[in-house]
Amino acid sequence: MTEPINYDRPVSGISLAGSFADAWCHGYEKDSIGLIPCAEGGSSLDEWAIDGLLFRHAVEEARFAMETSELTGILWHQGESDSYHGGYKVYYNKLLLIFEALRKELGIPELPIIIGGLGDFLGKAGFGENCTEYKLINEELQRFALEQNNCYFVTAAGLASNPDGIHINAASQRKFGLRYFEAFSRRQHIFEPLEDENEILNSYNTREYTKSEKLYIKSMELALGKLSYEEFEYHLAEISKI
Amino acid sequence: MTEPINYDRPVSGISLAGSFADAWCHGYEKDSIGLIPCAEGGSSLDEWAIDGLLFRHAVEEARFAMETSELTGILWHQGESDSYHGGYKVYYNKLLLIFEALRKELGIPELPIIIGGLGDFLGKAGFGENCTEYKLINEELQRFALEQNNCYFVTAAGLASNPDGIHINAASQRKFGLRYFEAFSRRQHIFEPLEDENEILNSYNTREYTKSEKLYIKSMELALGKLSYEEFEYHLAEISKI
Repeated sequence: MTEPINYDRPVSGISLAGSFADAWCHGYEKDSIGLIPCAEGGSSLDEWAIDGLLFRHAVEEARFAMETSELTGILWHQGESDSYHGGYKVYYNKLLLIFEALRKELGIPELPIIIGGLGDFLGKAGFGENCTEYKLINEELQRFALEQNNCYFVTAAGLASNPDGIHINAASQRKFGLRYFEAFSRRQHIFEPLEDENEILNSYNTREYTKSEKLYIKSMELALGKLSYEEFEYHLAEISKI
Repeated sequence: MTEPINYDRPVSGISLAGSFADAWCHGYEKDSIGLIPCAEGGSSLDEWAIDGLLFRHAVEEARFAMETSELTGILWHQGESDSYHGGYKVYYNKLLLIFEALRKELGIPELPIIIGGLGDFLGKAGFGENCTEYKLINEELQRFALEQNNCYFVTAAGLASNPDGIHINAASQRKFGLRYFEAFSRRQHIFEPLEDENEILNSYNTREYTKSEKLYIKSMELALGKLSYEEFEYHLAEISKI
């Protein structure tokens, strides 16, 4: 796996999916995980309407994955683009229609959906300045997760943004992904930051690379012109000895 | 547009699609172009079989695009992974089945297909060392384009590879894209490098950015942490004055 996972723009960077997948691999060591990226930066809930392109594309991508894999959940994070002009008033019902249709189209009525909250940095500066009603959207997201079957809320408390005032920064995305995994694996809401977020991330970051990861890193260095082919072959032989 | 256009791996880099699109924009100034990336690095022709994932995924992606756009051609470049073990003997017929099915599925029987040749750096070193029969595949690709309706061959003569011995390097991809556009726009085979490839690329590279490109570059610098939000706002105001 490499990042950006969801390549909807050249600077999409780090998302919560990376550390979610890392935690998943630690939690289910005998299985393997695939991610189905279908997010679209800056999209409003209306852009996810049932007959719209994003919805239908996400369903198609999931169906391709389901030919070889079991679909076990949806990681949902959306709402900034509905955090103004009273968008919260219709948010719950719109979301309900979308999720009901998603589960129906995918043929999994009980498909778990993990629903992250919006960050407290919104409504203040930069691109996030206009998201003045983000707290009201957060209330709807939380109420939705509490009332609907197999939906779990994940708090964004304590997460920080990039200088643009709207995108969760990389370090916070890592924490958010851990919280999503906690909600996913325990089937419960996560209303507070995990106590050991930093320790878990540190243990992930300091583990030794596997053999195939080491080979992959060298092949990337070759592709980027940082290694000659002869140097690459040397590393290949060295790593294969391990 | 930003690169990599076809993000099938983190180091996919520059492809021929970039300069093709650039040439297209210069050739059809009043229209706008969209690219439908569906290549898969290292794939053999069998992996593009009609019932396979790559084929069906490409068709689905094209259909999404066709909801709002006219599909005007396919840029095809494949063959390295069939350049050994006698793959050339069955290549023509396999390709014919795939292209007939593609045109049928997309509902455009006369859809132009631009077919690039394989580079002369193959069969010699690195990852390309095993592609010993690339010349025989090239003969099949050329014969196919000559015999089939609305298929045009594009030579890879003079193009150079990365140190890995298999991937066309960035400078050569730019030239290749220009040749693809010549074949596409003139509806004719391109058997020789264009005489003015360097001049055309130089004119593209030295043109002034448009206003929206300038704004986009600044928003990327903001996203990458190279600008504070205040600096970004300053540049935004300056560019908007133009």
